[in-house]
Amino acid sequence: MNSCSSIGIGLAGFGTVGSGVWNTLQRNGKLISERTAGGTLLEIVRILVRDLHKSRATHEDVPTELFTTDWHALVNDPAVDIVVELIGGTTDAFEIVAAALRAKKPVVTGNKALLAERGRELFALSLEHDTPIHFEAAVAGGIPIIRTVQDSFIGNRILSFSGIINGTSNYILGRMTDAGLTFEEALGEAQALGYAEADPALDVNGWDAAHKAILLATLAYGFPIDPKEIHVSGIDQVRPTDIHFAKSLGYAVKLLAVIREHEDGSVELRLQPSFIPKSNILASVHGVFNAVAVHGDAAGESLFYGRGAGQDPTASSVVADLVEAARSLGQASGHRGFLPYRESGRIMPVSETSTAYYVRFDVTDRPGVIAEIAKILAEHRIGISGTHSPVNPNNPDAAFVDMVFLLHTCPFGQLQEALLEVKALDCVNSSPVVFRIESLS
Amino acid sequence: MNSCSSIGIGLAGFGTVGSGVWNTLQRNGKLISERTAGGTLLEIVRILVRDLHKSRATHEDVPTELFTTDWHALVNDPAVDIVVELIGGTTDAFEIVAAALRAKKPVVTGNKALLAERGRELFALSLEHDTPIHFEAAVAGGIPIIRTVQDSFIGNRILSFSGIINGTSNYILGRMTDAGLTFEEALGEAQALGYAEADPALDVNGWDAAHKAILLATLAYGFPIDPKEIHVSGIDQVRPTDIHFAKSLGYAVKLLAVIREHEDGSVELRLQPSFIPKSNILASVHGVFNAVAVHGDAAGESLFYGRGAGQDPTASSVVADLVEAARSLGQASGHRGFLPYRESGRIMPVSETSTAYYVRFDVTDRPGVIAEIAKILAEHRIGISGTHSPVNPNNPDAAFVDMVFLLHTCPFGQLQEALLEVKALDCVNSSPVVFRIESLS
Repeated sequence: MNSCSSIGIGLAGFGTVGSGVWNTLQRNGKLISERTAGGTLLEIVRILVRDLHKSRATHEDVPTELFTTDWHALVNDPAVDIVVELIGGTTDAFEIVAAALRAKKPVVTGNKALLAERGRELFALSLEHDTPIHFEAAVAGGIPIIRTVQDSFIGNRILSFSGIINGTSNYILGRMTDAGLTFEEALGEAQALGYAEADPALDVNGWDAAHKAILLATLAYGFPIDPKEIHVSGIDQVRPTDIHFAKSLGYAVKLLAVIREHEDGSVELRLQPSFIPKSNILASVHGVFNAVAVHGDAAGESLFYGRGAGQDPTASSVVADLVEAARSLGQASGHRGFLPYRESGRIMPVSETSTAYYVRFDVTDRPGVIAEIAKILAEHRIGISGTHSPVNPNNPDAAFVDMVFLLHTCPFGQLQEALLEVKALDCVNSSPVVFRIESLS
Repeated sequence: MNSCSSIGIGLAGFGTVGSGVWNTLQRNGKLISERTAGGTLLEIVRILVRDLHKSRATHEDVPTELFTTDWHALVNDPAVDIVVELIGGTTDAFEIVAAALRAKKPVVTGNKALLAERGRELFALSLEHDTPIHFEAAVAGGIPIIRTVQDSFIGNRILSFSGIINGTSNYILGRMTDAGLTFEEALGEAQALGYAEADPALDVNGWDAAHKAILLATLAYGFPIDPKEIHVSGIDQVRPTDIHFAKSLGYAVKLLAVIREHEDGSVELRLQPSFIPKSNILASVHGVFNAVAVHGDAAGESLFYGRGAGQDPTASSVVADLVEAARSLGQASGHRGFLPYRESGRIMPVSETSTAYYVRFDVTDRPGVIAEIAKILAEHRIGISGTHSPVNPNNPDAAFVDMVFLLHTCPFGQLQEALLEVKALDCVNSSPVVFRIESLS
């Protein structure tokens, strides 16, 4: 019942994900063709690499004439119908994607930084040339959250997202929790296992997850978001003390993306280490897994869970986008990729966002410390639900100790003002460390 | 940037879900239009009801001239571009869907029984008239599992599904577990809360979930499946004793759909009460929520969790399908609905499927009972991992007691043969009750 139509793919980048796409099409190409009305055969006809002479011992099945080091040759090859961008970065990748759109060749990309930083320009090009950009692989690897928000929840106003969308930091926090490792030890382990990059900065400083959160928010609320407008902090400040406290209070510590639309239409968007109730299903997301909870006004609460990275899961998303892009080829009207539908919207300043807080101070242990800090908090009308100074069993008379305060819900800006004063106290030795306590109704 | 195009919807059925679709389009119609390239406006232009004169006090905003009791008038109305079937059943619903396909009007339905029982005929009509049937609302309400399998996982061989896809039975099992209720008490509660129908047969006998499992398997493996070929048992045999044992052994009792492709291409498909490890994320699916775990050869393990029923969640899925159906209108080539891509496949007979088991016998309490049962199991080469007879604290000398055996993995057929012999023992008073113990790697 299928008459085969062959679609030429230009694959820019042949690293982990790129070679995963090759493998998946080799393994399941026939199955994909059977499953598509019209029998679409996806065929990789060009591959952009940095070095033609690099050994590709694990990919001896790739005909060498497919490789090129010239991206123009790939984008302009008449046999290339769809361009897959997997080289990363925001400069060459931008040029390749822009050129493909101008040539009316649909683009599939997994490049979250590119879309979060330069999405406004690229979506404008997509609209101008009526050619879609698909980017399922850019957020949460093998979890089809982009398509879910864009298509399945199209009838919903999205009330909120809460997501664990960086596997490396989730692994690190998990090992600190389960094995009592320090941040540095857990990071070393993640690197040894290949979960973290040699330079793990974007993973641990929160920005990898923040780029993904920006894309989710753009999809849900329809306007491009400037990364400068959002508040991001990573897990590099998390200490065993914090993990210990969280556990004893019935919380898990997670690097959580929170996106929420408020009554006035403004969008709260932040990425921070957070205490979440152990009973919440997100607390059960372990290791390098990712999960995104979505609350739609019709669908209610949903959760999407799976592998957030890795060769095959990410390739799975690229291939799904390729089938989607192939479907749109030759269709007369309206492309199926995402386009912002509002010029702009309001990102709520982080100072206006309210939660409860866990705050850790590094203090000189002497009588009166709690009173001095509590007085400042009271003056700023911030309620205290608990305070504790753990005794160091190895050194019960240590001069410097951690002092922990649990604070009632207030705007972050109000807390920041109070903390500026606390920091100026002579008994406080460094900047306080703040984590959100999320209720996650 | 959007020039509006209005799409006429014929809504067959205005019960819970049908009126939910109306509400959702009233509330979010403008947003949906903004989000669709081309500005699709979905407009309900005809509504099929049983009784024109029934009071619809909560829907006074529906113009009365939209209502009709004649489905021909709805399907044949030139203003109707897409037909939504929400009347349920497999007779009139079949006629309506078939007539719509013949008129080349795309169909959106939430009718799992119709597609599971008569899908072969309807998919053939869909192919013949190149007109899609969309059925996201038929499986797991607001969870977009159909689209996920069909589109997002199109590059994956689906290795397995494990799903909790009947909210009513999950609620009942949860209340038996958490509040110590009997099956009858928990069912009564579910009915009082409106979770279970007045006739809850399809919920508790497993067939509501089985229809959904048939659709998932058909999607994943591409061939229509005869409901007669699959093994279904419900939760009506679950007793507090079973719940107690499961808990003490570290398991949760769930009505689990298991679908798995074996090496030889045969498909295991069954629906039974099962013990699953408490550590598995499916054990955390509480109340009326649904969840489907999918294992793809590329995507790896994923889980999709959300509201499996209810007015708004199901309407959310209907609306997503309406947008999809609207997109396909006027497209020249290949419809985007599901079509089986194989004539037939092999469903593995349940006798060949292997797991470990929990078996409960109602026995006369006298010395030698365990020995007699154990001897028969040994003759059938079935290993015993544990056996227990709980003492009834209210009646420690009761003549009739429950006797529980935990059995090692063996084919179900082998177990059934042994149990036939056990049942013939004069100390065994009724048919043994068998639950699966699932390892859920």
